[in-house]
Amino acid sequence: MQVSESQWSALEKETAQEAFQRAYEREVLTLIQDVRNQIGSLSKIDDLWRLHDFLSAKRHELDGKYEYDYPSLLFVFANLIRDGWLQLDELETLEKEKLSKIAALVRL
Amino acid sequence: MQVSESQWSALEKETAQEAFQRAYEREVLTLIQDVRNQIGSLSKIDDLWRLHDFLSAKRHELDGKYEYDYPSLLFVFANLIRDGWLQLDELETLEKEKLSKIAALVRL
Repeated sequence: MQVSESQWSALEKETAQEAFQRAYEREVLTLIQDVRNQIGSLSKIDDLWRLHDFLSAKRHELDGKYEYDYPSLLFVFANLIRDGWLQLDELETLEKEKLSKIAALVRL
Repeated sequence: MQVSESQWSALEKETAQEAFQRAYEREVLTLIQDVRNQIGSLSKIDDLWRLHDFLSAKRHELDGKYEYDYPSLLFVFANLIRDGWLQLDELETLEKEKLSKIAALVRL
């Protein structure tokens, strides 16, 4: 399922970068809202360390998840769609074969 | 300046534990308020990771600072007084020699 950078056209790259960035921004906005809600209910030290553990896990998760790398991009997009940060139709300018592969990965 | 556990009377231990706990609660409450104040300025991912770094540092600092250990307790109290989390008169039931040592450490 790996697709090297040379197999992405200029238009596809543009679509991919925009979709990737959009998913990232959506996830970040949701995360910020989540953290704001947690801060609102902070009353003891355990709540604070729970928030710290949560941020540590999210930072690690996001650092790994949003690595823009062509060979693994189909997997990345499939994961983002599965997690609800992206819709398949936002990638519609990609060639059919890539879209089918992504759709198949989403169903796995 | 080290004072072994056997040199603390039962009453002194009680005073020390209460003062220690009170300082800890004050510092935790201030920290929680500080984090709550940061809510308003959370708008992008860098703000979130800055909060994460801040909590990492505070957790490390508090873990080290609030280790209840008799041999080093005079130093701990001196630091807590210097940082404003405790007043010397909250330790007034300690014997004079311990109080003088703490006061001397605060002035260092």
